[in-house]
Amino acid sequence: MTPEKFSPPKRILMGPGPSDVPPSVLEAMSQPLVGHLDPSFVEMMEEIKGMLRKTFLTENEMTFPVSGTGSAGMEFCFANLIEPGDEVVIGVNGVFGTRMTDVARRCGANVVTVEAEWGRIIEPEQIARAVEGGQPKIVALVHAETSTGALTPVEEISRIAHKAGALLLLDAVTSLGGCPVRVDEWGVDAVYSGTQKCLSCPPGLAPVSLSDRAMDVVKSRGVAVQSWYLDVNLLANYWGDGTRVYHHTAPISMGYGLHESLRLVLEEGLEGRWRRHEENHGKLREGLEGLGLGIASQVGHQLWQLNAVNVPEGVDEAAVRGGLLDNHGIEVGPGLGPLKGKVWRVGLMGHSCQTENVAQFLKALEQELGK
Amino acid sequence: MTPEKFSPPKRILMGPGPSDVPPSVLEAMSQPLVGHLDPSFVEMMEEIKGMLRKTFLTENEMTFPVSGTGSAGMEFCFANLIEPGDEVVIGVNGVFGTRMTDVARRCGANVVTVEAEWGRIIEPEQIARAVEGGQPKIVALVHAETSTGALTPVEEISRIAHKAGALLLLDAVTSLGGCPVRVDEWGVDAVYSGTQKCLSCPPGLAPVSLSDRAMDVVKSRGVAVQSWYLDVNLLANYWGDGTRVYHHTAPISMGYGLHESLRLVLEEGLEGRWRRHEENHGKLREGLEGLGLGIASQVGHQLWQLNAVNVPEGVDEAAVRGGLLDNHGIEVGPGLGPLKGKVWRVGLMGHSCQTENVAQFLKALEQELGK
Repeated sequence: MTPEKFSPPKRILMGPGPSDVPPSVLEAMSQPLVGHLDPSFVEMMEEIKGMLRKTFLTENEMTFPVSGTGSAGMEFCFANLIEPGDEVVIGVNGVFGTRMTDVARRCGANVVTVEAEWGRIIEPEQIARAVEGGQPKIVALVHAETSTGALTPVEEISRIAHKAGALLLLDAVTSLGGCPVRVDEWGVDAVYSGTQKCLSCPPGLAPVSLSDRAMDVVKSRGVAVQSWYLDVNLLANYWGDGTRVYHHTAPISMGYGLHESLRLVLEEGLEGRWRRHEENHGKLREGLEGLGLGIASQVGHQLWQLNAVNVPEGVDEAAVRGGLLDNHGIEVGPGLGPLKGKVWRVGLMGHSCQTENVAQFLKALEQELGK
Repeated sequence: MTPEKFSPPKRILMGPGPSDVPPSVLEAMSQPLVGHLDPSFVEMMEEIKGMLRKTFLTENEMTFPVSGTGSAGMEFCFANLIEPGDEVVIGVNGVFGTRMTDVARRCGANVVTVEAEWGRIIEPEQIARAVEGGQPKIVALVHAETSTGALTPVEEISRIAHKAGALLLLDAVTSLGGCPVRVDEWGVDAVYSGTQKCLSCPPGLAPVSLSDRAMDVVKSRGVAVQSWYLDVNLLANYWGDGTRVYHHTAPISMGYGLHESLRLVLEEGLEGRWRRHEENHGKLREGLEGLGLGIASQVGHQLWQLNAVNVPEGVDEAAVRGGLLDNHGIEVGPGLGPLKGKVWRVGLMGHSCQTENVAQFLKALEQELGK
C-alpha cells in the first residue's frame, strides 16, 4: 500500500526552529526547476552571495550556503580549518558548544574546553586564561546557544583570540537575522548559520563565511580536508567568481527559498528586524512575569529569539508542551541536557516573531497551566 | 539595492540532472512547515523509509535520506565504513568512480583502482584480479556512470566481492527509479542515490541503505566516524525506530517533496517506470540514428536515462547546447573529462522521460545542427 499524500497539520512554530516560513518563500520553493549550471541560476547564486554578505555584515568573498543544515556548516568550518594535532579552544555552555568539541575532535583537534553553566555565557576572562601559554589555532564560540537562550558577547573574546594568534570561529545559527551579527566589525574569521531560524527559510542550507585570514589558513594546509563534500577549495570552484566548475548538484529549490527569504530580510532591514525581535521578546517576558514565570538564562544576556522559560514546581513540562501542540497548534521545544524537564524553549524567530503569536502563546500557556 | 524576486525561466530538463519535477511534488514543497520532531513529521519519516525500501528493493532497516545531495550520500557510505588503512577496491570508468577514490582516500583508505575507458563498463574479471591476494574491506562500483552513460552489471561483481570477504558499495544516484536496482537480490551492502535524477524530486537529499552486514562493520569500528554530520550511529537515533533523538534539523520541505515523489514512483510501479525509461531511450536512439548520430557508451550496456550522444565532426558542441537552451528551453549536459566537447549528455530521467520530450528534443537538435 502506497501511503496517502502528506498533508501537514497547521502549526505556529515557536520552538527552537524551524520557524514559520512566509508565504512568498513557500511559493518560491514550488517554482519549476532549472539546472544547477543554468545561466539564470548562476546569476541567482551571485545574488544569494551578495545578500548573505549584507546579512552577515561582511565583505568576505567566501560567503555562500553549504548544501546541508546548520550542523553541516559547523563541520564545514572545523573540517576546513583543522589539521590533526591543532589546538582548538571551545566555549561550552550548552548543546552546541558540546557538539563543537565532538566535531573538532573528529577532525583531529586537540580540544581545550572552556565551560560555563548551561544558561550562562562564556566570559572573556575564561578564554583569556585558556589561551594563555598555549598555541591555539582556533577559538570557537556559540553566539546564541539555542539550548539555553544565552547570548555570549563576541567582541572582547575575538580580540583575545586574535592576540593569541588564533582565528575566531562563530556559531551564528540562531543569531543571524534576529540580533546583531557583525562579522567584519567583530573580526570573526569563520561563521556558520542555518536557514530555518531567524531567516525563516526551510531547513537544508547552512550560510557560511570565511575571512581572507581563514582562507589563508585553508590554502596553507599540509593535508587534504578530510571531507570532500565540505572542502572549500572545491566548493570555491562552484560558488566562486570565475567559471563554474561542477562539484555537487546544488539544492535548486532550497536556493530559490533562500533567495526569497534573504530578500525579505533585507527589505525589512537588519535594524528593523532586530528591533522586532527585541520588542516581541520584551512582550513575551512581560506576559510571562504576569503568569509568575521567569526566563532561565543569565540576566542581561538573554536571547530575544529563544527564551528558555522556567517550568514551575510541580508542573509536568511534557504534558503542557503536548497540550500547546494538540489543543492550540503551537510548537515549543523541550529543555535539553541539564535543562530537560525544567524549561520550555519558546522561539520568536523570523516570521514566527509576531506580536499576535506572543499573545496567542501566552493565552494558550495560561489555559494549559490552569488544567 | 535588494535583488528582484527570482522567476526561473521555463526549461525542459534533459541533462544529467536535476530532472523536471512533477507538479504535485512542487506543490508538496510549498506546504507550510511543521517541526522536525512533530508527530506528523515523524510518521511521514516512517513512510519515507518504507517507500525507500520498496524503491531500493531491500528490507534493510537502515534505509533513509541523508540531509545532503548525492555526493554527501557517497561520503556517508565511505566515511562510515572505512577506518584508516583499510583496503578499498574502486571501479573507475568516469567522473563518479574518480570521485569515489578521492573521497575514500580522504577517509584514510588504501585505494586500489580498477580502470576502464570512459564509456565502457567495469568487467567482473578486472575486479577478480584486483581482489586476488588482497584483503579488501570494500569493493565500490558506480552502477550508472552519469558522466558516460554506461551501466555496469552488479551481480557478478557482488559475488566476487563477497567471496573476497569485502562489502559491496554501490553508487545508484542515476540508476534508482530509472532501471532495476535490486539491493537485496544483488547483495549490495551500502548504496546511495540522489533525489534529483529518476526520482524527480529537487536535489538536496541522498537516499541511502546499509545492510546488516555493513552495520556490523560500522558497529565494530575502532575509531569514531570522522564526520559527525554523517555518522550513522548518531543518525540512527534520529531516523531509527525508537524514540527520536535530535541530531540535526531535518530538511522539512525536502522531506515533503521526497515523500510525494516516492509516492509517484510506487504508484507508477517500478516495473512500469523502468519500461517507460527503456522505451523512451529506444525512441531517442532511433531518432538519433535518423540524424546520423550515435551513442558513445559501450553497446549492450547503454543507460536508458542518460545518453552520451556523439558530437559530429566539425560541430561546435557548446554552440549547439547553447542553442538548445536559448532557442528551445531544453537543457542537455556537456561531456566531462576525456569526453569534453565530444558528447552531449541527454537525460531521460523520471518526469523528464516523456515521449513528447524526446520528439521535441530531436526536432530542436535537428534545427540547431542545420544552422
